[in-house]
Amino acid sequence: MNTISDIKITQSLTSKINEVDFENLTFGSIFTDHMLICDFKNGAWQQPEIKPYEPFLIDPSAKVFHYGQAIFEGMKAYKDAANDVWLFRPDQNFERFNKSATRLAMPEVPEFVFIDGLKTLINLDKAWVKHENGSSLYIRPFMIATGSGVIAQPSTQYRFMIILSPAKSYYSGEVKVIIAEHYSRAANGGIGAAKAAGNYSAQFYPTKLANDEGFQQIIWTDDATHTKLEEAGTMNVFFRINDTLLTAPTSERILDGVTRKSVIDLAKRENIEVEVRSVLVEELVHAAKEGSLKEIFGAGTAAVINPIAGFSYQGTYYELPKLETSFAQDIKTKLTAIQTKDAEDTFGWTVKV
Amino acid sequence: MNTISDIKITQSLTSKINEVDFENLTFGSIFTDHMLICDFKNGAWQQPEIKPYEPFLIDPSAKVFHYGQAIFEGMKAYKDAANDVWLFRPDQNFERFNKSATRLAMPEVPEFVFIDGLKTLINLDKAWVKHENGSSLYIRPFMIATGSGVIAQPSTQYRFMIILSPAKSYYSGEVKVIIAEHYSRAANGGIGAAKAAGNYSAQFYPTKLANDEGFQQIIWTDDATHTKLEEAGTMNVFFRINDTLLTAPTSERILDGVTRKSVIDLAKRENIEVEVRSVLVEELVHAAKEGSLKEIFGAGTAAVINPIAGFSYQGTYYELPKLETSFAQDIKTKLTAIQTKDAEDTFGWTVKV
Repeated sequence: MNTISDIKITQSLTSKINEVDFENLTFGSIFTDHMLICDFKNGAWQQPEIKPYEPFLIDPSAKVFHYGQAIFEGMKAYKDAANDVWLFRPDQNFERFNKSATRLAMPEVPEFVFIDGLKTLINLDKAWVKHENGSSLYIRPFMIATGSGVIAQPSTQYRFMIILSPAKSYYSGEVKVIIAEHYSRAANGGIGAAKAAGNYSAQFYPTKLANDEGFQQIIWTDDATHTKLEEAGTMNVFFRINDTLLTAPTSERILDGVTRKSVIDLAKRENIEVEVRSVLVEELVHAAKEGSLKEIFGAGTAAVINPIAGFSYQGTYYELPKLETSFAQDIKTKLTAIQTKDAEDTFGWTVKV
Repeated sequence: MNTISDIKITQSLTSKINEVDFENLTFGSIFTDHMLICDFKNGAWQQPEIKPYEPFLIDPSAKVFHYGQAIFEGMKAYKDAANDVWLFRPDQNFERFNKSATRLAMPEVPEFVFIDGLKTLINLDKAWVKHENGSSLYIRPFMIATGSGVIAQPSTQYRFMIILSPAKSYYSGEVKVIIAEHYSRAANGGIGAAKAAGNYSAQFYPTKLANDEGFQQIIWTDDATHTKLEEAGTMNVFFRINDTLLTAPTSERILDGVTRKSVIDLAKRENIEVEVRSVLVEELVHAAKEGSLKEIFGAGTAAVINPIAGFSYQGTYYELPKLETSFAQDIKTKLTAIQTKDAEDTFGWTVKV
């Protein structure tokens, strides 16, 4: 079972597309007409199926509810001027998905199911991908443990799914961040590097506390000393000190972001000096005080590049300068142009659906 | 809405009870005829409902699948010789459940829904609780985020459920453990103290590696230095050095186990010296070498008390002595007798259903 004709397709009789206001989309809230499902049982992946997007039945004792075996990926597809649809580095997401699977003791998903399944699904819902500026199709492959039983052991049954959501942009408005001083996102030897559902639920309460103080996001630090800057939970983070771009190396605690590595490659091509190394909180504060800290921005699939207006640490707020031309804006423009095929893809990152 | 008559009850037309072999139960695999469901939406808990146990419909974008907002409790009910059913310290589980809810940015569940709902549910499935030696009813209250949307924000809709599973014993056979040297269960400032689904998925892969080496469980250590003994993931851990019982203090990384605190109280009543303090790995190894380490045992609702035969650290296996009379056995006997009402409950821990 490894050709596209092996995917069972049940087309939706009607489309919801005319009900959707594509100019006013709340990120991740509207889904296309179809979804992909592939179940793992008896030690093997079953036939993938594309069918109308709808709720599904699950047992109350399904292990995903009790023991959190759940992983996902975030990807985007773009439509070019010729109406062709393009994926951005899908091989990277596929590879990372299976790394997450291994870390959570879940089975690896075959490339046929993940990549060919995705392409087949997108082709069916191609009309949902718009060419308009800022439009994209957000792609959410995920896997959950569907085996039943409330004993703390890995499941023997899993469900892999892909759902699609038309998107404009992720964040709106000014983003101020707070540097984590008490709460943490990930442990040494933990699952921080996996795109695991459990990593996100841990962040909601501290983020709510930050929101209450007027900050939209948290920049997480290492849990042992809170002295090293790590990532922002839904984004990796870059710091521009003078004209050098700094970002933490990936580790067991930090997600190996696809946008992060693309930003590094793109910045290097633009002759921007990039240092991938541990960045200390005190270094950031010092740079902010002496004026050498020019920019902070997040990098992630949903937001692409998200400029940060300022950060708070130990009760002091450090406002970043408003720049005429910023690395964040320049890199975002160039990266988006590659993704949407408005610029030549010299890296070979884009893949036609 | 706060009396038992406000719970909507739909009784099952048939019972599965005659299909069940109560002498040969796999822990957590068989469920009783009914379950309790209570939904949270529009900022309020809705009417609780008891209905036949069955799968339910959920949206593929439900936040529990993507962002891991899922918490649970483990409790047990016992039937005494007079056919009355007793809960063990349900107030403790209720309190901890709501602490977990807060840490995961989920709404607190009202006492009426959790406690009165549970009692009503158990009364309906009372025939499933057996008086026979070692029998109990394992109770699994849990809450999941049912709101839809793939944006990393807390859900606005939740489902609280209680399911019941008849049980004999949790572990069988000799339990050997390995002391964690690389992998970790929880971060400082993380969610280790919450009974969150995500904490368990993180342990499956390292546990699988331990299983491959012939060990059934891992004793987790602090993630920063791996020098302090913490808990076993599904159990808290006690160490007996000479005649003193040692266990780690609860913290952000360690679950405040109900069995753990009951063991401490019971041991003190039996004039056993108990030290609640950080226990170092090197202290354990030293005690094992000099022969003062007499016992290690786990304490948790599912297993009650689980004696450990030996531990491995840095490639060396330390076998524990086989004792004629052990603290583990003595405490287990006395605790179980209180739970099953075979001994007087001087602590006021048992609550009649």
